[in-house]
Amino acid sequence: MADIDEIIESLKRFRNDRDWEQFHNSKDLSIAISIEANELLELFLWKKAEDANIEKVKDELADIFAFAFLLADKYNWDVKEIVLEKIRKNGEKYPVEKSKGTAKKYDEL
Amino acid sequence: MADIDEIIESLKRFRNDRDWEQFHNSKDLSIAISIEANELLELFLWKKAEDANIEKVKDELADIFAFAFLLADKYNWDVKEIVLEKIRKNGEKYPVEKSKGTAKKYDEL
Amino acid sequence: MADIDEIIESLKRFRNDRDWEQFHNSKDLSIAISIEANELLELFLWKKAEDANIEKVKDELADIFAFAFLLADKYNWDVKEIVLEKIRKNGEKYPVEKSKGTAKKYDEL
Amino acid sequence: MADIDEIIESLKRFRNDRDWEQFHNSKDLSIAISIEANELLELFLWKKAEDANIEKVKDELADIFAFAFLLADKYNWDVKEIVLEKIRKNGEKYPVEKSKGTAKKYDEL
Repeated sequence: MADIDEIIESLKRFRNDRDWEQFHNSKDLSIAISIEANELLELFLWKKAEDANIEKVKDELADIFAFAFLLADKYNWDVKEIVLEKIRKNGEKYPVEKSKGTAKKYDEL
Repeated sequence: MADIDEIIESLKRFRNDRDWEQFHNSKDLSIAISIEANELLELFLWKKAEDANIEKVKDELADIFAFAFLLADKYNWDVKEIVLEKIRKNGEKYPVEKSKGTAKKYDEL
Repeated sequence: MADIDEIIESLKRFRNDRDWEQFHNSKDLSIAISIEANELLELFLWKKAEDANIEKVKDELADIFAFAFLLADKYNWDVKEIVLEKIRKNGEKYPVEKSKGTAKKYDEL
Repeated sequence: MADIDEIIESLKRFRNDRDWEQFHNSKDLSIAISIEANELLELFLWKKAEDANIEKVKDELADIFAFAFLLADKYNWDVKEIVLEKIRKNGEKYPVEKSKGTAKKYDEL
């Protein structure tokens, strides 16, 4: 089985064993991603990037992935497909010649 | 090449073509994930889950994955490994018999 | 002393007693507001609005206010002035006749 | 009228003129605060604190205050009271002698 399918299968087994699908509407899953992203962010608060606790960063990043994969699965999206499609769209918003070496947003380029 | 490796290679090519690695420290990548998570969340604001614009949900979720994969790559983590390891840990925090059918947090079980 | 000044004075005294101003640059204060906003949000996760723990909501909302007031003070902004000014601007983006009774964003009106 | 009351009255007039109270349940107001906090955060993304656009910082901070005041009003909380009460609680979690000059979280002190 492909890696992503295997991850999603494990997440769904965990969820179904606990009968949690009833709570996992897409609005609350999106809230969950934001919460996990901010638990990740807290590890960097008042600190330089390199001073965060790496083991905890790993844990929080895994939580973000978990809810993101569950949300993708909810809509039956192929994660590789949607990310590659987004890269293609971003290539139009951020053409290399304009965006190279600058962190400006596309509407300021 | 495995799906996840292919996604990450595409993201890094996009980033390197624009010389953006210099901006991608782990603190700002974490900020980026939170920002994208909230752009996703905005699609559900003042609405029921089912009333969100699905095409936009797809776009924002792809952005979250993009920064999450870049952050995983920064630390050389294998995404499948860290998510499966987190599922294992969560299995201890949320034993089936205690957590089945309830949305309570582990410290309230 | 006006209420807002009194709040800000108390926050600064707390901060200065601990010599924390050194950490309170505007980027990290903004991160702190996002983190506190998500601790608030967690109280509503997988739940209806009315099922959140109100005492905890109060605590987290107070934390958001604390960092928001400290950020306003950092730039010497008068909170009443900036909020009233924003209401005025929003009045232009959301004219009553177009926005009444609808939760649509201004760019969809 | 006290400053905070005046702010809240203005926010409620704006809201009521548009018949928006129906959307403003406490869960969505909390989501709104998180979204605004991340619009603020975006102004600092890939940047040093001092490189953010100050006029935009002011605008986004005002939005955070707006939703925070509306949420406080929803529960009939006195903002000065809840912030001062939280400072008192934080004084117990962060005693001066332990927390002076360190950005550590209370559970690591």
